[in-house]
Amino acid sequence: MLPYKTLIQIDRSASTPLYVQIISEVIRNITVGIIAGGQKLPGTRKLSILLEVHRKTVITAYDELEAQGWIDIKPNQGCFVNDTLPLVYPQAPPRESHHKIAQFEVPSYADVLVHPPQTAQPKARLTIDDGSPDVRIAPRRTLAKHLNFVLNSGIGTSLMTYNQAYRGDLLLRKEVLRYLKESRGLSLSLENILITRGSLMAFYLVFKTLLKPGDSVIVGYPGFNEGQNTIRMAGGSLIRVPVDEDGMNVDSVEQICKRKKVRAVFIISHHHYPTTVSLSASRRMQLLALAKKYRFAIIEDDYDYDFHYSSSPLLPMASIDHSGSVVYVGSLSKIIAPSLRLGFLTGPENLVNELALLSQYIDSFGNTALERAIALLFQEGDVSRHIRKAVRTYKQRRDLFCQLFHDRLSEAVELAPPEGGMALWVTFKENYPVNEIIAQARDRGLRIPPPSSFSDQESPMNALRLGFASLDEEEILKAFEVLEDSVRGSRR
Amino acid sequence: MLPYKTLIQIDRSASTPLYVQIISEVIRNITVGIIAGGQKLPGTRKLSILLEVHRKTVITAYDELEAQGWIDIKPNQGCFVNDTLPLVYPQAPPRESHHKIAQFEVPSYADVLVHPPQTAQPKARLTIDDGSPDVRIAPRRTLAKHLNFVLNSGIGTSLMTYNQAYRGDLLLRKEVLRYLKESRGLSLSLENILITRGSLMAFYLVFKTLLKPGDSVIVGYPGFNEGQNTIRMAGGSLIRVPVDEDGMNVDSVEQICKRKKVRAVFIISHHHYPTTVSLSASRRMQLLALAKKYRFAIIEDDYDYDFHYSSSPLLPMASIDHSGSVVYVGSLSKIIAPSLRLGFLTGPENLVNELALLSQYIDSFGNTALERAIALLFQEGDVSRHIRKAVRTYKQRRDLFCQLFHDRLSEAVELAPPEGGMALWVTFKENYPVNEIIAQARDRGLRIPPPSSFSDQESPMNALRLGFASLDEEEILKAFEVLEDSVRGSRR
Repeated sequence: MLPYKTLIQIDRSASTPLYVQIISEVIRNITVGIIAGGQKLPGTRKLSILLEVHRKTVITAYDELEAQGWIDIKPNQGCFVNDTLPLVYPQAPPRESHHKIAQFEVPSYADVLVHPPQTAQPKARLTIDDGSPDVRIAPRRTLAKHLNFVLNSGIGTSLMTYNQAYRGDLLLRKEVLRYLKESRGLSLSLENILITRGSLMAFYLVFKTLLKPGDSVIVGYPGFNEGQNTIRMAGGSLIRVPVDEDGMNVDSVEQICKRKKVRAVFIISHHHYPTTVSLSASRRMQLLALAKKYRFAIIEDDYDYDFHYSSSPLLPMASIDHSGSVVYVGSLSKIIAPSLRLGFLTGPENLVNELALLSQYIDSFGNTALERAIALLFQEGDVSRHIRKAVRTYKQRRDLFCQLFHDRLSEAVELAPPEGGMALWVTFKENYPVNEIIAQARDRGLRIPPPSSFSDQESPMNALRLGFASLDEEEILKAFEVLEDSVRGSRR
Repeated sequence: MLPYKTLIQIDRSASTPLYVQIISEVIRNITVGIIAGGQKLPGTRKLSILLEVHRKTVITAYDELEAQGWIDIKPNQGCFVNDTLPLVYPQAPPRESHHKIAQFEVPSYADVLVHPPQTAQPKARLTIDDGSPDVRIAPRRTLAKHLNFVLNSGIGTSLMTYNQAYRGDLLLRKEVLRYLKESRGLSLSLENILITRGSLMAFYLVFKTLLKPGDSVIVGYPGFNEGQNTIRMAGGSLIRVPVDEDGMNVDSVEQICKRKKVRAVFIISHHHYPTTVSLSASRRMQLLALAKKYRFAIIEDDYDYDFHYSSSPLLPMASIDHSGSVVYVGSLSKIIAPSLRLGFLTGPENLVNELALLSQYIDSFGNTALERAIALLFQEGDVSRHIRKAVRTYKQRRDLFCQLFHDRLSEAVELAPPEGGMALWVTFKENYPVNEIIAQARDRGLRIPPPSSFSDQESPMNALRLGFASLDEEEILKAFEVLEDSVRGSRR
């Protein structure tokens, strides 16, 4: 309810009768748009209590307001402000507080960002994404059970109020550390880890802290535009280095370091976005040596380490970093579900301390109750169980998708089955332009992620990154049917 | 499990026997700290499958490793790396990936921030906070029910994966807009609102977007240090203006504007932190007029509008802003629970568009499933019901706390019962120094929030901000008992 007691100001010492004061106050509020047309006014009894006047005073005021055409009194329903009032006071301000343009200066990010997000896309019957997990097989019921337990138990009280878990719930940090040790040989202490709202926030915290405006960061091309935009938002300047079948070309990194100061290298060590290649073991060693020599930071994005099908993963650079050069970033988006918005970063203590301060003033702490529920999911083995199951499922889906390309579209594409991850990297021959494929697919009700998420106008690539993990076999078959028609139809 | 298949590299073309290669690879991994002391190795059968060698080869290798003292084979338990190995290779890197200091340069926020957070405080038997809600009376069961529904229903799938709800779940935005209209006469469109991770993130987004390094922002003194630190983190420079019993002194704001460019005024319009005063109606009009004249932004923090006991709230400045000067920030921390990390901001469309971009690259989107569950809580009236109940409860607690001060400590304090909010502002007479009171209380097992959250070294205040909402009557009586002893004990 609106604060009528404040809106309707009555002066008991004035000579104007109270009911007239009420009338003029109501009219004033209607004309300036505070009380909107169609709005229900408080009942006469309620308003009389609020204003501390006799109920008859309010009834008289309402009757007069109705007579003047300001309100409608509907029997058994109440008093409503007339919805068809003429604009009595032409100088009255607009009824909406809705402003399109601020009166103060608003700087724009448009020049800073590459590929700002498209406006919401129309719904499609079928969608191939760029590599999302299948949240339908995520342990949702178990998570709901743990959440229910946390929210309704005694623990819930301390977890739900303001707390000092600026670095993340203690139990979750411990469980993630244990998991990193067991799966990656990464042996860290509590001072080395920070829980973040997704890996994107981890990137932002690092770049915002390390970079002065114009500082250089080396990135791969083609690369992950969304992640690279966090560097731009933090004021950094990007230097691109080619990515080949062994990952980022580290010799090029060295050439650049000889010429100029490099503050950081932003690298995806497994399943590079978009091309799905992994950085080779020897390049990992080489990059670590360069980091030590030229004193740059390695921001290692290892977003789907846990999903390997044909080979065993390599150890993260963080696990063999003996100089304190690596900030390691991971995410629970692929492991459980993107909407949890949970990621983590690890790094040297003195860096993590500063990142924790920035994080504290960006959003204080996370949803501690949710973090505790996820910690329980780790502790009870649900996470490992889910990963094992998901790896089996995704491997089948990868194999099916690759087989379909091999059997039915081999004349149009080049495709190396990825060793891990959740997406295929499909290069189309020149006479099958991807923009035409995307347009035709859209007309047939299939949405395909556009190349703008990794390539740009200057050096466009005739390739697509197609996720296979979030579709079941039936959906893959259906989607491929449409894709096949669109590819054939696009031929020049 | 560690990726043994990658860790143990075998060269089938080499002349070295396979079991010797396995031995030297295991030793290498142990000495560089990848395989830690005490760690369980995979069983011989499993390792033979991983490495694609005969099982007998692995058995021979393990036997030799045991003979050399590297591992222990425990019957029926498995093979474990010896935990008491001498450092065979003195040049071997440390076993931990735990680094204290980065090899690259790490800038420090210490000079930027005022009152960086204390280290975790010791547990206390009793705690008086600085104005938190009582999450024990929050609709936790209903929230858990809605969450359970969302997570397990068909909706859950689309809400749990990557989505484009960069500005917040659509239903939640609609529900908050409806709530703002009904409670505050604030009539906005979907383009004017952004859901944030708490109000702190709303402040950070605004200041990071509006401020160039060194730009001036006017704030009240004494004020909300935590919120003001978001201005510092975003590179802004603070100008302090005194706060009296009618809120911020707006004449002082005008004097400053005449002298220099002011980019924004950061103001708490109801229940100023820490002094609990509200900005008077005439000052609200005056500040809006100044904003229009000098083209600065008003960042209106209205964090507990919904909690009034003795009077009706004033309308937010946002509701009567006809020039597009106000960014209005609110939070669900007080309305439901702080750990939800949900807040919102409203403002002119062109500003909100830019803030949404920054938010997208700081943390992508929020926990959409949770946001949907909260939207249902609004939609089904649970939020309004809870607020009504909480207001009744908190009013009783406020009255009790004030009565106790009046009856038992009136010689030591000055205290005006706050009209709303969740905290009292208690000024102590000079001969009762608050630091001594806090120390004595701590010794008696009661934690009291220190003045460092609002005052500073240069102009310390002999006052405390004491939350009354999160304690029930029994707890208030207990806490007051200790407080009373500590106040008396501190007398000089």
